[in-house]
Amino acid sequence: MEKTIEWIKEENCSRMVDQLVIPYEHKKVDIKTSSDMYDAIKTMIVRGAPAIGIAGAHGVCLAAIESKEKANFIEEVKRIADYINSSRPTAVNLAWAIKEQLEILEKNSSKTPDEIIELLIENAIKLENEDIEINKKIGDFGATIIPKGATIQTHCNAGALATVGYGTALGVVRSAFKNDPTIKVFADETRPRGQGARITTYELTRDGIDTTLITDGMGAYFMKKGMIDVVVVGADRIALNGDSANKIGTYMVAIAAKYHNIPFYIAAPKSTIDPSIKSGDEIVIELRNKEEVTIVNDKPICTDKVNVINPGFDVTPAELITGIITEYGIFKPSEIHKLFE
Amino acid sequence: MEKTIEWIKEENCSRMVDQLVIPYEHKKVDIKTSSDMYDAIKTMIVRGAPAIGIAGAHGVCLAAIESKEKANFIEEVKRIADYINSSRPTAVNLAWAIKEQLEILEKNSSKTPDEIIELLIENAIKLENEDIEINKKIGDFGATIIPKGATIQTHCNAGALATVGYGTALGVVRSAFKNDPTIKVFADETRPRGQGARITTYELTRDGIDTTLITDGMGAYFMKKGMIDVVVVGADRIALNGDSANKIGTYMVAIAAKYHNIPFYIAAPKSTIDPSIKSGDEIVIELRNKEEVTIVNDKPICTDKVNVINPGFDVTPAELITGIITEYGIFKPSEIHKLFE
Repeated sequence: MEKTIEWIKEENCSRMVDQLVIPYEHKKVDIKTSSDMYDAIKTMIVRGAPAIGIAGAHGVCLAAIESKEKANFIEEVKRIADYINSSRPTAVNLAWAIKEQLEILEKNSSKTPDEIIELLIENAIKLENEDIEINKKIGDFGATIIPKGATIQTHCNAGALATVGYGTALGVVRSAFKNDPTIKVFADETRPRGQGARITTYELTRDGIDTTLITDGMGAYFMKKGMIDVVVVGADRIALNGDSANKIGTYMVAIAAKYHNIPFYIAAPKSTIDPSIKSGDEIVIELRNKEEVTIVNDKPICTDKVNVINPGFDVTPAELITGIITEYGIFKPSEIHKLFE
Repeated sequence: MEKTIEWIKEENCSRMVDQLVIPYEHKKVDIKTSSDMYDAIKTMIVRGAPAIGIAGAHGVCLAAIESKEKANFIEEVKRIADYINSSRPTAVNLAWAIKEQLEILEKNSSKTPDEIIELLIENAIKLENEDIEINKKIGDFGATIIPKGATIQTHCNAGALATVGYGTALGVVRSAFKNDPTIKVFADETRPRGQGARITTYELTRDGIDTTLITDGMGAYFMKKGMIDVVVVGADRIALNGDSANKIGTYMVAIAAKYHNIPFYIAAPKSTIDPSIKSGDEIVIELRNKEEVTIVNDKPICTDKVNVINPGFDVTPAELITGIITEYGIFKPSEIHKLFE
């Protein structure tokens, strides 16, 4: 399986699909410095909770390579890691993967920088491979809840391009499609950044999956008409009570699904669950810039006199979630804490 | 008050604000033939249920002017009127205003074409003036349900530009603002055509009203944060049981408002109520072209391999509607039928 983000040993760099130009171009960019990695995450060249986790792990490798001649090598790597971690606050996978790398750093602090760099790179590649394996497990567990011939609504992109490969929510779609090529997907556009329109429809139609693009306000219309059987989305951070942060707009879809009695599932790896927080109220929601809302395809869509508030995520409360599909099986939101017991 | 659409006697034409170029340009176009009027409605140079009602009335005037030399004058005008009426199926105001004009035609069929044309123009101008008066009444009734300092969410554009002047939902905002300049508006972008982003924010900021643009997926996020006090939207057709068709996306906002216990109001003139239908199930929903969804600012937002379904409207069931604000007062949806008794 092609990795959408991977460490290139020969070049000592992180190579990733440039998600800003999809679907117009499918090209890869090489990120060679920790500062460029910060920018790549912040500007969303790489996006999707699991993918930015790997980007963070790669960023620590780059930080170590840059710092290897420094006297305070360990402190310097930690400082840069903190900086990379500050690029986006909501998805916990970034913090999780950076923490995994810093544990390697701490445990091996008596070794030489070159030896530590080797271990960090080894661990980053291990995380890449695990991500694909985890997603396949999520997909296979998730496929069991997709009825034959179902139409699945999804929001944003929780696909191969949001991960190293296969995807979480779209991993469920892929596994279901393997068993039943008659399934269909309704993809929400996902304004302001349009990940559903740009990335999800690109990814799924390339795989030959029947995909319909709808705007973010249309979901309830199709639900009422009986055209949506199940909703499956990804997540950026899940609290111990099952409250789940995901791309802005998810919460409205979840409310509409509840109103129409349509099952609503989250698909995410265990690393998306943040055992340090009890409920979604504690999740920090990233506020992004005004221009993401006001400029589309390089042209304004509104007067410049208007105010904008641009939250990148919202929190869907556990009561609206039918189940959370993980690599360990499908859990009720109220039971997700058991993964940490 | 400047009319956004009006009959120009000197030129025998309908002059209207070109809503396709707002907010980039504020210009008026003259519509001089019934065929151009059909196109103006269909392509949304003129839009908004009350405004397209007036456009329909003007269209009948143009039809009569074009047909005045014809032997079968009456039949010819009726034929063209039917054609104009077919331009957009959902908003009842179009059918209503054309019917008003055809009644003039029938009642005066013994008169000369020139006399009939005079009467049709007179009636069209009367409808224009009444529209503004009706909207001011709707606004003043509606202002009574806006709490001091409230933030009002609205969807699409039910403003001066959707009517002859003042607006329905935005008429409520204007009347409330007169009493209390601290009120604020959150305007949904309203994909795919972006009437909220393009037109509502333009119209309100010109009047000095504090306006925040949000994407269609954000409403519930702000509702949960306690930042929305009341939702007020327009309507395109209201059934006798209070079910209300309005711009696609309205239904999701109504469901989200109910979930957060936020009052949800429809503001519309009596002419928007269709006494011939019992429930929203009977309302025909216009399906529009794929490109409205896939092309933004002249550039695609997605792969061309995707399917699109593009309903222009959805129906909000009466159970989600707190009240319907009309020129005769505010009614519970279950009581709206009394206006016809």
